[in-house]
Amino acid sequence: MKILNLNQIKSVLNSIDLLSYIEAGFIAYSQKKAVIPPVGELLFDDPPGDVHIKYGYLSHENYYVIKIASGFYDNPKLGLSSSNGLMLLFDKNTGGLLCLLLDEGYLTNIRTAAAGAVVAKHLAPNKVHRIGIFGAGIQGKLQIQFLESIVNCRDIIVWGINQDELTEYLEYMESKGYSVETTQDANSVASSCNLIITATPTKHPILMSDQIQSGTHITAVGSDTPDKQELDAKILEIADVVIADSIDQCLGRGEIFHALNEKAVKKENLIELGDVLAGKKAGRISDDQITVADLTGVAVQDIQISRAIYEVIKDDSKYEFGNRKI
Amino acid sequence: MKILNLNQIKSVLNSIDLLSYIEAGFIAYSQKKAVIPPVGELLFDDPPGDVHIKYGYLSHENYYVIKIASGFYDNPKLGLSSSNGLMLLFDKNTGGLLCLLLDEGYLTNIRTAAAGAVVAKHLAPNKVHRIGIFGAGIQGKLQIQFLESIVNCRDIIVWGINQDELTEYLEYMESKGYSVETTQDANSVASSCNLIITATPTKHPILMSDQIQSGTHITAVGSDTPDKQELDAKILEIADVVIADSIDQCLGRGEIFHALNEKAVKKENLIELGDVLAGKKAGRISDDQITVADLTGVAVQDIQISRAIYEVIKDDSKYEFGNRKI
Repeated sequence: MKILNLNQIKSVLNSIDLLSYIEAGFIAYSQKKAVIPPVGELLFDDPPGDVHIKYGYLSHENYYVIKIASGFYDNPKLGLSSSNGLMLLFDKNTGGLLCLLLDEGYLTNIRTAAAGAVVAKHLAPNKVHRIGIFGAGIQGKLQIQFLESIVNCRDIIVWGINQDELTEYLEYMESKGYSVETTQDANSVASSCNLIITATPTKHPILMSDQIQSGTHITAVGSDTPDKQELDAKILEIADVVIADSIDQCLGRGEIFHALNEKAVKKENLIELGDVLAGKKAGRISDDQITVADLTGVAVQDIQISRAIYEVIKDDSKYEFGNRKI
Repeated sequence: MKILNLNQIKSVLNSIDLLSYIEAGFIAYSQKKAVIPPVGELLFDDPPGDVHIKYGYLSHENYYVIKIASGFYDNPKLGLSSSNGLMLLFDKNTGGLLCLLLDEGYLTNIRTAAAGAVVAKHLAPNKVHRIGIFGAGIQGKLQIQFLESIVNCRDIIVWGINQDELTEYLEYMESKGYSVETTQDANSVASSCNLIITATPTKHPILMSDQIQSGTHITAVGSDTPDKQELDAKILEIADVVIADSIDQCLGRGEIFHALNEKAVKKENLIELGDVLAGKKAGRISDDQITVADLTGVAVQDIQISRAIYEVIKDDSKYEFGNRKI
């Protein structure tokens, strides 16, 4: 049995073609080759916290994966990150634990950013002239880093509500070679960018339909619960293409959930990401279309990122826990 | 974060007053102080296997526990045990992983045997003259071992269908100081014993109501699914007291489930184990009563056994994984 801590996981990730794994995962999901039971949940009041257990497997692969992810919102008062978690990869033929990834929640951020890059690769306009980011946190940074190999553009504008966080973001991304502008005005982003990623936990839309230029692609990754919403539902109404990572899941959460409630989209017009990746359905067909992708996070991403790491290290004795398997 | 392998777990168990933890767990459960969501499940066809994720917490304690348990029924062909598993204990205030118990399914056997001893302590007749065991497997052995401190009787008769397994059982238990008879006839057990434990995976009753002597206590631990049944439902009808480890759970599985279906018991007459342990309800009130306890296995047992181990080793650096917490 292998165990990796966060630093080891980060090191292994550098050698993985993660986007290929994530793409294959979404394709398998849309082809109904993924078995993903309902999420398990524990909720705590005092101190406030929630724990989610996501699990499942690809029917044609040899693994099943269980992810435990938590958010304890008073943790920062104790000097701890609010999010935490780990992933367990098992042998689907024997039930043996193959690999324990003590990722502290990091892989969830990474697989979310990787999904953003997969979406941009297939749905962004041919020439991205400026990238707009809503949310100057870790996900706002990771989304840009994962876009590096997908789009040539190095000009970004970041929206946030906290000037200190925006300044920190600017300095960090400039150190990575980007030209960065910060703003607290959503319109400055919408009017200058044709690739926009929203990565905030807001419960009230921050990007409005009348701000959106033709030819823009928007990926919304912040809303993963029924009460969160980043996009004015009318944006999905004016969009030429609306993509869901999981149509089933988006019926109950995310931007599409709100747009369905407001009758801004019809379920039958939704397109699932895996069907676009497999070439089964069209995504963007011209550079002046408006496209929207709603990424609520699917366990198949957790399955694939765990598997990707395990397949690199499975013969490396450095990661072996003791000399025994369980 | 602490990690213990199976040998380390076995060693730590020796120093724990496990019955006290299990009793306290059942009491808390019956007092509605345990939060135990529905069990998560993965089912596999080829090779056949199932995985169960049981989890929860006691509201007045500082931990939550997630248990992953699997059964892969072709494993013996590969020289592996069919059952496997691990338990994870987390800090309920921060979500931090405190302890990983790589118990390979062993702790599930132990907590089941410990529950059997708790039941016998409170429900067996004053003087046990012979103990009957149905099932010569690991659970049949552990039940006897856990009874050692509860009843003085060292005379046992074991029922099984495989003579080799019976012989192995006899030799093993004789080496522990017991006088052992083996049988393939259920009546030989019922006619000579006033404490009977059934620990088989049978789907057809092996013990019939007309065999039961007055003054007998029966603990059934084998039936943990709706399709398994060890006791003729009429045994529950003639019993003076019918105990459930969890009334809620026994409505859908175990001996009580079958007896309810056959109208051999009424739901309102069921007594929950924790209420007997707390002195809130009477269990056995005379030595000539017939009492039955149906143990289907409750996650509170997993919570308590994990906690019991952790509380012994939490300051022992020998079990620390690296020098970092996640």
